[in-house]
Amino acid sequence: MNNIEAYLDNAATTQIFKEVNKYMFEIQRDVFGNPSSRHTLGSASEKLINRSREVISKKLDVTSKEVFFTASATEANNLAILGYLKRNPRAGRHIICSEIEHPSVLNVYEMLSQNGYEVDRIKTDSSGQIDLDHLNSLVRIDTALVSVMFVNNETGAIQPIRRISEVIKEINLNVVFHVDAVQGFCKLDFSVKKLGVDLATISAHKIHGPKGIGALYVRKGVKVSPIIFGGGQEYGLRSGTENVSAIAGFGKTVELLDKEISNNISMVRELRGKFIDKLAKELVLNSFDDGSPYILNISFPGIKSEVMLHHLESEGIYISSGSACASNRNTQSHVLKSMGVAKAVSDSAIRISFSELNTHEEVMFAAEKINYFLNKLGRSK
Amino acid sequence: MNNIEAYLDNAATTQIFKEVNKYMFEIQRDVFGNPSSRHTLGSASEKLINRSREVISKKLDVTSKEVFFTASATEANNLAILGYLKRNPRAGRHIICSEIEHPSVLNVYEMLSQNGYEVDRIKTDSSGQIDLDHLNSLVRIDTALVSVMFVNNETGAIQPIRRISEVIKEINLNVVFHVDAVQGFCKLDFSVKKLGVDLATISAHKIHGPKGIGALYVRKGVKVSPIIFGGGQEYGLRSGTENVSAIAGFGKTVELLDKEISNNISMVRELRGKFIDKLAKELVLNSFDDGSPYILNISFPGIKSEVMLHHLESEGIYISSGSACASNRNTQSHVLKSMGVAKAVSDSAIRISFSELNTHEEVMFAAEKINYFLNKLGRSK
Repeated sequence: MNNIEAYLDNAATTQIFKEVNKYMFEIQRDVFGNPSSRHTLGSASEKLINRSREVISKKLDVTSKEVFFTASATEANNLAILGYLKRNPRAGRHIICSEIEHPSVLNVYEMLSQNGYEVDRIKTDSSGQIDLDHLNSLVRIDTALVSVMFVNNETGAIQPIRRISEVIKEINLNVVFHVDAVQGFCKLDFSVKKLGVDLATISAHKIHGPKGIGALYVRKGVKVSPIIFGGGQEYGLRSGTENVSAIAGFGKTVELLDKEISNNISMVRELRGKFIDKLAKELVLNSFDDGSPYILNISFPGIKSEVMLHHLESEGIYISSGSACASNRNTQSHVLKSMGVAKAVSDSAIRISFSELNTHEEVMFAAEKINYFLNKLGRSK
Repeated sequence: MNNIEAYLDNAATTQIFKEVNKYMFEIQRDVFGNPSSRHTLGSASEKLINRSREVISKKLDVTSKEVFFTASATEANNLAILGYLKRNPRAGRHIICSEIEHPSVLNVYEMLSQNGYEVDRIKTDSSGQIDLDHLNSLVRIDTALVSVMFVNNETGAIQPIRRISEVIKEINLNVVFHVDAVQGFCKLDFSVKKLGVDLATISAHKIHGPKGIGALYVRKGVKVSPIIFGGGQEYGLRSGTENVSAIAGFGKTVELLDKEISNNISMVRELRGKFIDKLAKELVLNSFDDGSPYILNISFPGIKSEVMLHHLESEGIYISSGSACASNRNTQSHVLKSMGVAKAVSDSAIRISFSELNTHEEVMFAAEKINYFLNKLGRSK
C-alpha cells in the first residue's frame, strides 16, 4: 500500500466515507434482489433506489421524477447531450459549449461536429469565467443546446449559471441548457430550480461516494431519448440492472453531506487560504478567490508540473498536473489555454484539490514540502 | 429484512460471494485513486483493473487487449451492436438476431429498424433452439451483424454457437457475430476462441459478482466505435472513471469460480433433477435436458404464474414469472411464444433458476411447497 501523508487530488476522486463503504457492504450482502424482480426481494432493492432518488432530488431542489441514475457523470453528460438532440431532431443543428468543458462534453461535441451539427465554443476571460457577451453573440434561432459546467475541474472557476441561462433564454426560449455540476454538487449551493437549468449532471465519487454512479437531472417537460436500450429501467431512460449498492451509497453520501455544506466550505476555504499564504511569494495563481475553494490551480514557473508532482509523490503527497480525466495526454491544458495563460506558466501548473477530510497538518505538510523543494532548486526567495 | 428460505431467482441476479463483497469493501477503503491519475495511487487502481482484465480474458480464452469493461451487460450489448454498426457504415444495412434475445439486444434492433436498418429475426423450434435452416436462409451479402445469445435467460436453452458461426461465415465471411453470453459465462464452458465469435457480452452479477459491471469481448481486428465519449478510458472504447472496486470484484468472482465450473454443473444438475422428479406428475417442462442446468422453466397449467410466484414468496421462496428484465410488463413471454408454447402453458410458466449456493434442502423445500399448494387447489394426483 502507498504511504499517504496528504491526499490533495480530490477533484480527480475522493476517499469514500467510511459509513458509505460500510453501508454498501451491508446492502450487497443483504439486499441483493434485482429491482425488476416482482417479488419482495426485488421491491426491497427498488425501495433503496427510490430512497436515494428522493434524497438527491431534494438536495437539487427538484422532484424525484426528474432524477435518473447513470453509471458515471460521463454517461450522464452523454445522455444529456446525445439524448436530447436525438429526441428533438427539429430543435436545430447548432450547439454551444464553453471552451473549458470536461472531455465528456467536449468530445461529444467534437463527435457531433463531424455528424452534421454546427458547434460554437464560448471563450473565457483570464479569470476562467465564460465571456457572456461572446455567449450572447453565439445564440441563434436554430441553437438547440448550450452546455456550460458549474465549477471548472482544473481551476475551480465558478460559472454564473443563472446569468448564463438568462442570456440564452432572452434570445431563444427554446434552447435547452445543460450544466455539468460534478465539481459543485454538495460542495457549493446548487439549487437547480432557481438557476434556470434544464439538464444537470452530478457524480458520487467526487464527494466521498462510490465510483460507478452518476445521475442526470432532466427538467419536467424536457424530452430525452435513451442512449442505452434494453429492459427500460430508470423510467425507460437508462436500461441495465441498477447498481443498487452504489445508488444507495450515493444517497447516503448526500445525506451525510447535506447539513455540512456551509461548514465544509468555510473549513476548506481556510485550508486553501493557509496553503496560499505559506507559498505566496513563490506561486502564480491560476485560480481566483471567487472560485470554488475546493480547487486551487497554481504554477511555479520553471518547474514542470510533472517534476513537482513526482517530487511530492515521493513525500506521500498526491496532487494532479491537470484533470485526471485528460491526464493521460501530454498536451497543454485546454482550460489554461482558453484563459490565455502563458505556456511557461501552464507547463508548471499543478492542481491542489481539497476535501473536508483534509487536515490543517496535511495541507501545511504539503506546503512545507513544496517550499523545501523550491529551496533545494534555489528557487526560494 | 425478508425471510429467505430458498432463493431460486439466480438468473435475475445472484447473491454476491462473501469473499467478493469483503474484497470490494477493502478496495473502496484502500485503493481509491482515480486510475487516470498519474501518481501511484492512480496506478494502484489501474493495476487492479488490469489484473481483473487478465483473469477474465484468460477465462474467455482471449487476450487481455480484447476485453473492455462496461457498467452492465446491457451496455455491452449496446456497445457491441451500435458501436460496430457505427464504426462500419459500409458493412451493410441488414442485421439479424434471434427471436428470443434479451431486451437489451431486441430493443436495440427495434430502434435500428426505425433508423434505416433492415432487421430479420431467426425463428426457434419447440425446444427453444434457433432454426439453423432459417438462419441460413436469412444471411445475405449485405448482412452486417448477427446476434444470438449463448444461453436463453428464460428457458436455459443453449444455442449451438460454433455451428451458428459456421453457417453465417460460410455464406458471408464479413458478417460479425455477437453473442450475449451472460447466462453461460462461468456456468458452462465458453471458450470464445474455439467458437468463431467476434463480440461477446458477459456480466458479473449473474455469477455472484457485483451489480454495475459487465464486459465486452471484441476480437482483435474488429473495429467498434464508442457509444459514450469522454476521457478515453478502456482504450478509448468506454469513457468514464472506472468502477475500480466492481471491476476488481468481477475478476475475483471469476477466480473463485474458475476451477469449480464442472463441479458446479454436476451439483446444479443434480438439484434440478431432484426438483423435477419431485414434481414430475404435475408440471409441463418448457426447458430441456440439453439446456443449461441453471435455468428451469416449468408450467402448472391453470395456475397463473403470478399466483404461484406470490404463494411461494409467502413461504420465503423466490422465483420468477419470466425474465426479471422484462417482468415489469404484462405481456406473454416472447421466448415461449417463439417456441410455440400454448398460451395456457405460457400463462402459468415460472422460472426456477439455480445457483451452486443452493442446497438440496432449499430445493426440496420449494418442491414441497409447490406440491402443497397444488394439493390445496385440488390439483395433485
